[in-house]
Amino acid sequence: MPSNYRSFRKSVPWLILFLETVFIILFYFLVPRYGYDAFIRNISYTDFQDVNNMVIFGFGFFLAFLKRYSFSSTGFNLLIIVLGVQCSILMEGLLFLKDPNERDPKIITMAAVSMTAVAISSGAVLGKTNPLQLIVMTVVEIIIFHVSRWINKRFLQVQDNISMKHVHLFGAYFGLAVSSRFSEPSPRSEKNASTPKSDLLSMLGTLFLWVFWPSFNSVLADRDKTKAIYNTYFALAVSAVTAFTLSVLTTKDGKFRMIHVHSAALAGGVTVCYTAESIDYPWIAMILGLLASVITILGSFCLQRCLSPALKIHDTSGVHFTFGLPGLLGAVAQVVLSVIKKWTVLPSLGYMVMIYIGAFCLTISVALITGFITG
Amino acid sequence: MPSNYRSFRKSVPWLILFLETVFIILFYFLVPRYGYDAFIRNISYTDFQDVNNMVIFGFGFFLAFLKRYSFSSTGFNLLIIVLGVQCSILMEGLLFLKDPNERDPKIITMAAVSMTAVAISSGAVLGKTNPLQLIVMTVVEIIIFHVSRWINKRFLQVQDNISMKHVHLFGAYFGLAVSSRFSEPSPRSEKNASTPKSDLLSMLGTLFLWVFWPSFNSVLADRDKTKAIYNTYFALAVSAVTAFTLSVLTTKDGKFRMIHVHSAALAGGVTVCYTAESIDYPWIAMILGLLASVITILGSFCLQRCLSPALKIHDTSGVHFTFGLPGLLGAVAQVVLSVIKKWTVLPSLGYMVMIYIGAFCLTISVALITGFITG
Amino acid sequence: MPSNYRSFRKSVPWLILFLETVFIILFYFLVPRYGYDAFIRNISYTDFQDVNNMVIFGFGFFLAFLKRYSFSSTGFNLLIIVLGVQCSILMEGLLFLKDPNERDPKIITMAAVSMTAVAISSGAVLGKTNPLQLIVMTVVEIIIFHVSRWINKRFLQVQDNISMKHVHLFGAYFGLAVSSRFSEPSPRSEKNASTPKSDLLSMLGTLFLWVFWPSFNSVLADRDKTKAIYNTYFALAVSAVTAFTLSVLTTKDGKFRMIHVHSAALAGGVTVCYTAESIDYPWIAMILGLLASVITILGSFCLQRCLSPALKIHDTSGVHFTFGLPGLLGAVAQVVLSVIKKWTVLPSLGYMVMIYIGAFCLTISVALITGFITG
Repeated sequence: MPSNYRSFRKSVPWLILFLETVFIILFYFLVPRYGYDAFIRNISYTDFQDVNNMVIFGFGFFLAFLKRYSFSSTGFNLLIIVLGVQCSILMEGLLFLKDPNERDPKIITMAAVSMTAVAISSGAVLGKTNPLQLIVMTVVEIIIFHVSRWINKRFLQVQDNISMKHVHLFGAYFGLAVSSRFSEPSPRSEKNASTPKSDLLSMLGTLFLWVFWPSFNSVLADRDKTKAIYNTYFALAVSAVTAFTLSVLTTKDGKFRMIHVHSAALAGGVTVCYTAESIDYPWIAMILGLLASVITILGSFCLQRCLSPALKIHDTSGVHFTFGLPGLLGAVAQVVLSVIKKWTVLPSLGYMVMIYIGAFCLTISVALITGFITG
Repeated sequence: MPSNYRSFRKSVPWLILFLETVFIILFYFLVPRYGYDAFIRNISYTDFQDVNNMVIFGFGFFLAFLKRYSFSSTGFNLLIIVLGVQCSILMEGLLFLKDPNERDPKIITMAAVSMTAVAISSGAVLGKTNPLQLIVMTVVEIIIFHVSRWINKRFLQVQDNISMKHVHLFGAYFGLAVSSRFSEPSPRSEKNASTPKSDLLSMLGTLFLWVFWPSFNSVLADRDKTKAIYNTYFALAVSAVTAFTLSVLTTKDGKFRMIHVHSAALAGGVTVCYTAESIDYPWIAMILGLLASVITILGSFCLQRCLSPALKIHDTSGVHFTFGLPGLLGAVAQVVLSVIKKWTVLPSLGYMVMIYIGAFCLTISVALITGFITG
Repeated sequence: MPSNYRSFRKSVPWLILFLETVFIILFYFLVPRYGYDAFIRNISYTDFQDVNNMVIFGFGFFLAFLKRYSFSSTGFNLLIIVLGVQCSILMEGLLFLKDPNERDPKIITMAAVSMTAVAISSGAVLGKTNPLQLIVMTVVEIIIFHVSRWINKRFLQVQDNISMKHVHLFGAYFGLAVSSRFSEPSPRSEKNASTPKSDLLSMLGTLFLWVFWPSFNSVLADRDKTKAIYNTYFALAVSAVTAFTLSVLTTKDGKFRMIHVHSAALAGGVTVCYTAESIDYPWIAMILGLLASVITILGSFCLQRCLSPALKIHDTSGVHFTFGLPGLLGAVAQVVLSVIKKWTVLPSLGYMVMIYIGAFCLTISVALITGFITG
């Protein structure tokens, strides 16, 4: 076992080096073809930087709550993000830029956005994987995510922006599927323990995510960025308030549980992601934020005792409640709001529902496939 | 006592839930009337985000210096801010948007700015209140602050921007008045102890406040934002330098005291807030920063031993020195600079002094009133 | 010794106060002459704020890795930065603004950029100097750095932007020269020990530097800011990946060493600084990032055991590897890329090489001179 572990240790740097070499070679062949200038023009640097801040700081410290993994989390998060961004740019280049007329000028920002999926998945398997598995998972997940987006686009005629909004759903269920292949750590193990100090670091990460979430949703919105920003802000505000309330109600001693606050405060942002640009009144966003927070905490309350023993899934940072369920709620809300708006064109409604079903099927199927691959 | 405490614990979530429901209902009735679009257009997202960063991170970690309250401070700060922002938007909607012709398009940013008052007040009562009292204080303070601004506007013809600049003064004296109603914690209690680690967190908060203070002052300036930014920067720079100097001079062992640096480094920003856009030479801003820092540290040196025993006020994070006295200095500087500029129109001078006196009276009276309410 | 130490303690505040008074007086005499408005117009506040964030947070926490110096590092960093910025603005005013026709409107941003040199140097002498020496070093270094830039400009006709790019080289070698004058601390001393907690703080600083480095390089670029941003991003990404790889390969137990990751992840940004705006393909930037990271870690591996005993230089935070060697690599890359681009005008090539040699000679000579001054 130790010798096994040692030889594995030796293989990590070579894998990274191999990947990096492949990336550089692919960049050499791919990027000049479409022109570097077209590649980087028209990107709002402020948008890019906000998403970058959020992914690097926010997820880095959000995942730092396990005592033994505080450095690993921030360090590996950086490693995974930078590997994934390069991989993601290449995949976008391969799949989406085939036709030079329909260039997506925001390719680098979108690459950073799609890293959210990887960061969420790595939250589900935190403390159960070794670096080698984490790196393989990152590359596989990014490739499959872009393939799923390409299928969405090719067969369901879904716009790039909308297919990108499934990033939370994809990340959460992919992570859960991978996680189900790992044995649950023994309950007495200190690996799952969190300390006040690491909780505080995690709070720092949560605050980073909370503050930059409006930027994130506005990057994904293509029509009305200002509306997306403030709808997201209202949803986040209400879900943070609800998180504190429900945290007191669901615990026996009537104290705030940090873990509840962490996940539920962000649920509003995940839910409102789908509909941020089309909500016309702040109170709708606020009610969505409220529902998201309720679903997250009730989910964590009920499912943790039903799902975990039944399906043998151990979900280290509760990504199912934090990103999976609110994502589902958001997708449902999108359909409901579209129906209410009654665009009178019935096919359009069916089309909307088709997107939803298509994306959901893809997520599930893809999650199963890669559960096998990683296993 | 414990049963009492327990039943109180039970009441916190219901209060929060009740407030949140009222807010959503009010948003439902109020916002569509004025139009959501007018509500969010023309806001600089960068400005909003800077103020938001400052309030969430800056005050969250600035107040984290007590060992036992590091999580409480950042967590409750988030809860209070999001509750207060919603309350503040509604108050602005009620009091200031009555006349649809004089819309303030920066309503959300201003709501975030006015949260500074609440954050400062909560610094004064830190460690002495329970969550219930803190939430009640937040709502009461926001309502009274907006009423006081409305009185300023209606009877003293003070512009919105200028009345908003009293936010530090209001927050500091409101907090002191509320604090005077609470018994001083026993001196041997560990509740007031700070550890090197929590001091470091507080330093992180101070740095956040320090870096984003120029943005804050530029949001409040209506004419010359660039000048406001760099005057604030110079004042902050000099007051940080002076803070280190005086910290060594006033302590016996000649070491830097973190608590001095925390408060005095920010004093320059508070003082220059009133005059940031009208100062024409950097050296004036620098001298204001110097004076602010001196007043803060001397104040903390002298008043802590006179005021504290005499008035039975226990000021946990020294908000009186950090925000109260520099705010007074700034208001005086505003009057002095206006007189020096000699706008030859004598009534204008009297008008200036009237603003100052009016605002000061309001602050004191309001502080006394709510001291009784909370008591 | 203690009484000596005590009397020295007494002198620190008076030195700071004296400097601050001189600065305010000089500001009074210098700034109005050129006009405050011309002084602050046309500065992008976003640029200034990014550089400011990077210098205050990034270096503040990057240098916080020694257990006993975590507060000192962040606190003194703030003190040194604010003193240095004022000094730097005055020097720029004296040396560069003589001719009112060639105003550099970005004077405050450039002052913040040049503080990088001081922050790097203070990294080399960390834990060996007292505050008095640190302050003297700051002022001397800023003055000499601007004189060296002025010589560059006057005699070598180097543009301001390009001479500013030597800031890393200058900071690293100045710091090393000063450091060589101090005795190496005894190896058993706990002053050099780092704890997991302080390592994590340092990681926070590294992430800040990593995220804001593209902004930093884009401020220094005068032609093509977007290209500078994304080239820097690619170089940083590859050097972060390589840092993890090499960290595993060079350590015996096959674990990641934080100290390697800290320095090597940033090396790419330093190297690409010189050429960020002129690289036309991302793969060139990526290869530069790779080389920078390799040079940093191999340098730290080989030189630490050769250089340190031979030259009696003790380099606390490894600034030689983090900023010195990658800076050299970047300068060489600049020459090589210029030669490859074959601007057919041979004198232009010689001119390029001359710049390089000139700057290098200046750095070395200046470093030696001030090593004596401080000694």
